[in-house]
Amino acid sequence: MTKKQSIRDYGIKIGILDTGERNTIADVNGVKVGHVTLNDGDRINTGVTAILPHEENVFLKKPIAACHVINGFGKSIGLMQIEELGTLETPIILTNTFNAPTAAEALIEHSLHNNEDIGIKTGTVNPVVGECNDAYLNDIRGQHVNTSHVLEAIHSASIDFEQGDVGAGTGMSCYGLKGGIGSASRVIKLGKEKYTLGVLVLSNFGQKKDLIIKGSPIGEEIEKQDEAKDYYGEKGSVMVIMATDLPCSSRQLKRLCKRVSFGLSRTGAYAFNGSGDVVIGFSTAAKIEHYPKKEVRTIKVINEENLNQCFRAVVESTEEAVLNSMTFAKTVVGRNGHKRSSLNEYLNELL
Amino acid sequence: MTKKQSIRDYGIKIGILDTGERNTIADVNGVKVGHVTLNDGDRINTGVTAILPHEENVFLKKPIAACHVINGFGKSIGLMQIEELGTLETPIILTNTFNAPTAAEALIEHSLHNNEDIGIKTGTVNPVVGECNDAYLNDIRGQHVNTSHVLEAIHSASIDFEQGDVGAGTGMSCYGLKGGIGSASRVIKLGKEKYTLGVLVLSNFGQKKDLIIKGSPIGEEIEKQDEAKDYYGEKGSVMVIMATDLPCSSRQLKRLCKRVSFGLSRTGAYAFNGSGDVVIGFSTAAKIEHYPKKEVRTIKVINEENLNQCFRAVVESTEEAVLNSMTFAKTVVGRNGHKRSSLNEYLNELL
Amino acid sequence: MTKKQSIRDYGIKIGILDTGERNTIADVNGVKVGHVTLNDGDRINTGVTAILPHEENVFLKKPIAACHVINGFGKSIGLMQIEELGTLETPIILTNTFNAPTAAEALIEHSLHNNEDIGIKTGTVNPVVGECNDAYLNDIRGQHVNTSHVLEAIHSASIDFEQGDVGAGTGMSCYGLKGGIGSASRVIKLGKEKYTLGVLVLSNFGQKKDLIIKGSPIGEEIEKQDEAKDYYGEKGSVMVIMATDLPCSSRQLKRLCKRVSFGLSRTGAYAFNGSGDVVIGFSTAAKIEHYPKKEVRTIKVINEENLNQCFRAVVESTEEAVLNSMTFAKTVVGRNGHKRSSLNEYLNELL
Amino acid sequence: MTKKQSIRDYGIKIGILDTGERNTIADVNGVKVGHVTLNDGDRINTGVTAILPHEENVFLKKPIAACHVINGFGKSIGLMQIEELGTLETPIILTNTFNAPTAAEALIEHSLHNNEDIGIKTGTVNPVVGECNDAYLNDIRGQHVNTSHVLEAIHSASIDFEQGDVGAGTGMSCYGLKGGIGSASRVIKLGKEKYTLGVLVLSNFGQKKDLIIKGSPIGEEIEKQDEAKDYYGEKGSVMVIMATDLPCSSRQLKRLCKRVSFGLSRTGAYAFNGSGDVVIGFSTAAKIEHYPKKEVRTIKVINEENLNQCFRAVVESTEEAVLNSMTFAKTVVGRNGHKRSSLNEYLNELL
Repeated sequence: MTKKQSIRDYGIKIGILDTGERNTIADVNGVKVGHVTLNDGDRINTGVTAILPHEENVFLKKPIAACHVINGFGKSIGLMQIEELGTLETPIILTNTFNAPTAAEALIEHSLHNNEDIGIKTGTVNPVVGECNDAYLNDIRGQHVNTSHVLEAIHSASIDFEQGDVGAGTGMSCYGLKGGIGSASRVIKLGKEKYTLGVLVLSNFGQKKDLIIKGSPIGEEIEKQDEAKDYYGEKGSVMVIMATDLPCSSRQLKRLCKRVSFGLSRTGAYAFNGSGDVVIGFSTAAKIEHYPKKEVRTIKVINEENLNQCFRAVVESTEEAVLNSMTFAKTVVGRNGHKRSSLNEYLNELL
Repeated sequence: MTKKQSIRDYGIKIGILDTGERNTIADVNGVKVGHVTLNDGDRINTGVTAILPHEENVFLKKPIAACHVINGFGKSIGLMQIEELGTLETPIILTNTFNAPTAAEALIEHSLHNNEDIGIKTGTVNPVVGECNDAYLNDIRGQHVNTSHVLEAIHSASIDFEQGDVGAGTGMSCYGLKGGIGSASRVIKLGKEKYTLGVLVLSNFGQKKDLIIKGSPIGEEIEKQDEAKDYYGEKGSVMVIMATDLPCSSRQLKRLCKRVSFGLSRTGAYAFNGSGDVVIGFSTAAKIEHYPKKEVRTIKVINEENLNQCFRAVVESTEEAVLNSMTFAKTVVGRNGHKRSSLNEYLNELL
Repeated sequence: MTKKQSIRDYGIKIGILDTGERNTIADVNGVKVGHVTLNDGDRINTGVTAILPHEENVFLKKPIAACHVINGFGKSIGLMQIEELGTLETPIILTNTFNAPTAAEALIEHSLHNNEDIGIKTGTVNPVVGECNDAYLNDIRGQHVNTSHVLEAIHSASIDFEQGDVGAGTGMSCYGLKGGIGSASRVIKLGKEKYTLGVLVLSNFGQKKDLIIKGSPIGEEIEKQDEAKDYYGEKGSVMVIMATDLPCSSRQLKRLCKRVSFGLSRTGAYAFNGSGDVVIGFSTAAKIEHYPKKEVRTIKVINEENLNQCFRAVVESTEEAVLNSMTFAKTVVGRNGHKRSSLNEYLNELL
Repeated sequence: MTKKQSIRDYGIKIGILDTGERNTIADVNGVKVGHVTLNDGDRINTGVTAILPHEENVFLKKPIAACHVINGFGKSIGLMQIEELGTLETPIILTNTFNAPTAAEALIEHSLHNNEDIGIKTGTVNPVVGECNDAYLNDIRGQHVNTSHVLEAIHSASIDFEQGDVGAGTGMSCYGLKGGIGSASRVIKLGKEKYTLGVLVLSNFGQKKDLIIKGSPIGEEIEKQDEAKDYYGEKGSVMVIMATDLPCSSRQLKRLCKRVSFGLSRTGAYAFNGSGDVVIGFSTAAKIEHYPKKEVRTIKVINEENLNQCFRAVVESTEEAVLNSMTFAKTVVGRNGHKRSSLNEYLNELL
């Protein structure tokens, strides 16, 4: 039997748009992803995932950015400045809730190291961190991530990266099964040009009975078979990182970010009270120079009406990324013997 | 053959929560809905729908209220004050886009008539109006709604009301088929108490190929059979009115309003660029007195964690209300011979 | 004695930046203002003020726009779509609260007349209306403005326009004295280029004792002299229209709009509960075509750091525009013999 | 000569409302403030200030809270969850920009220590941190604050606390002079009840020439006398913490927070581009239990119209707190010999 990993390996095709070459966020030119995975086969199941928006100095060349809070029961860091200025100036780090400050510290260290002028001749830097609570499988109180793990995740970033129970996704749960890192991408055709939009999720939300796969209420069936306690089922979160090379303003990017909830919903999400559901998006089409040479700069933006195809790309990519975060993940037994089964254990039979 | 009207008549049951007695927004105690339908069998297909939050003077006893803009390409009136003060002080009127000011005028007339102190001894009143663009089937440039139609809709409001191609829904299109007014409700059990949450939609959005019914991509099949041009398919809108008797703050109500997009998504929505997708919610559990007797008042609010069941009620009610807006609607031929078929023409075969 | 009208005629110079040629919003190239004033020497004291962003068809060539709600106890129309799309597509109309829908109707009529495609081949139009409550001096329940007044205000717009108790300002009160229409402008120098930012206010807020003129607590003195009842003193509102030819995004414009409260504060404002304090800003530097020729367009935006001088321009212009709205206004006696004295009656003595 | 410290010691009385007993944020019953000051007489000039909302376990008994971003060029932590849930669950820590994550770490440590259930039987905790950039006087790149400093600030909190160049204020600059920690309070009378509203600022913003003291353009005079380079003059920030015992909802608290910009403006603020101007407010009138005993709870809220007096209290307290942050501060010479003079050096002569 061939090992099936992505949801497409099961013959499930989400939506009508073409995927990018890898069907991941790294299909957006310049974007790289790096993981550091911490697991001791017992109570430690956590890690770090770094998303690099491009290969140059992000502080000096800031991508256009936007964010959207679907449900704000979360501890993300750095959203306020993205909202005000519409730019990103560090890599984005994902990790467990109690190590979010650790990740921010590491991003400051990383930025200070690469920019000797920060805090001397120029202002400060805005670290951007997303988090989910992996306490079901991980000893989250132990705060096992340190700044060197974060820097290692940044330095190991690549266009080829693993999904599932890796990096920040190591200890996450999704729909009462094993969740984690998932990704997908879509190609957008405007006139003669092609653009790419990719999504990466850190999935850690939902109740088992609610899981929907391409319209099928698979979760109801799994619920009948799987006796595992659905602990924390309503307390998870989901972080969604959206990248694109579309020329667009931060206002337009924010409109794109808002469509993520439509994709989440199709997998069975309700954005429960205890869930921190946050979207951070960036476009690599323009890079805003930290030290601009002129008073006025020129940027390209797509026409508003052309956003429709992009909205579809966001919804499709989000839905598929969530499913990939589950199919790529193995079954994990963690803290106190808590267990999250892989979706794969059910899919062959149920589909 | 028995006439099938609601989506439940086709054996389609959305979600797991119990419906209210009528499965409409009027299951929330005190809420009434009235329609005035304007159609001349030709180019005029429009109307007015009035939602009354309770049976007393709404200006003197203001329900707690909130709103949420899913996509702001729309011309609703009155949202800013709801957002600031967290209260509603008129009935809510739905109509076509170019008659939204007419509806606001009528609400002012209605409020001045019932409150001699407005503009003399007390301040002003905030009319609340939602709208969608019915131009495909209706001569919208003709602005055929006048203030007397609006007052008539208010005065005719009842706990029993029609759905489908009536009132403001007369000329609306949904997923390239006939849309309009739809409603559904759910019962929420907290401890020993039961509460009701109801949704009413004015549906006018979506592309035929995208329609999903309880997970099934029905729209793809209909698209193959129905040759009608999908004009305005990406330019429609949806207005969603949410009522409840849950004790809650305006902040909590806003959190409920934000779950509407999860329900819309499950029917195939993307909130396209040209769509004005707006949610207005109110709770009848507390009525804020215009002339308060004391400096400090007491209100009851549910615990945050208990919102989870309510979120589910919003998502289920919204999904079902959209489907009901289609199954209750007849096929309509309007302006320039434009035609929108009833979903019923396809459902018996496809389900 | 020479007639003194502007606050500068009294030797009061606000701020350090240069004013534009006229020291009004019409210093921004293309901007025009028109009034229709309704007063019968008795209980009718109201009117309409129209602000035209440029001389071409605004629906076809939409200025970049933004808005900001300082305090949302108000009934403005059209803000939601400005917020979503970042453009303006009609002139802006100011009038009394109960005629805001009338003004929206007139804008629809105006837009339909100039654009035969609206509602037929293209979508709808978003009328933008601001309002204040002039009930102290005006029979606001009478709703004396009709659509022809609004169209007349649009058609009579000019770069030379009156301030004070004219147009929408006819019946307004400010700091317990006569308010109304006021304007001011500032020149912004970036590199070798000069840009202009202008503000127009419809002032109708504040308590007499709170009035501050360039730091002096003038209001305390006037309070001692003027026995007139300070009715509605905490229920007024202020509409602020900000125009500029700066190249900027809607996000940047919104940042500019947010500085208006700093200018209002320096005249003694607190944005009391019953006040609808709203800012609408637009830039004429770019005009977004309704029918774009290409998928991607190019826009110019200033560097973020250069906003500082612009922020100063907003604050200075706002402070001066409020004072001008008062010094240009004559004493008015209106409904029920209610009287609002002109600030001029006190200034010669107090300054 | 008696030592003058508060702005009132100079005979300057801001506003018309009575102050609380101490004229600080600690006049709100239960509120305490603690500082840790780090200065080595040379390049280290930084510290920590902790604001404790009440004397019980804040995680178990959460005050109602709200926040408002005046200008989002800042790195505050924890605002998103305050906005969503309307509660505070840790003390508030203020420090320098690059130690904001350190402060968040310490708050997590503090919360885990006091609550063994966090991350085991219950969810996570939301640390709340505000920051300003003290790089002009401090070696901010050295990140000299560690978690033990933060815990010490929490443990040393008292109703009597120092103002000026202490705690987080040690290295801050305001209007080109020495800034830091300042506080003020006002008493609000509603019916027979008295309530208190207090403000604490961490001031680090503004240009010398812009300083206004009770309407007088003092800054223009100081600018002429003080040759010191106005470095970072437009890049500072201000954090404002607002406490009250008023019974109010988070929506009402947010309305109060929005009035802070009116107070800042009266001291000469423009909220320049590089400034992170953030308000966090809380009310101790209700404490939301982490483990509620019933499904529905009762809260008291003041009538909306009564907010007017409270708005005035916010504006007056903010204006006075900024001035106190300057008059309480001594002249400081720091990193690279950079110097910030005390406002006191000029006041005796200029007032």
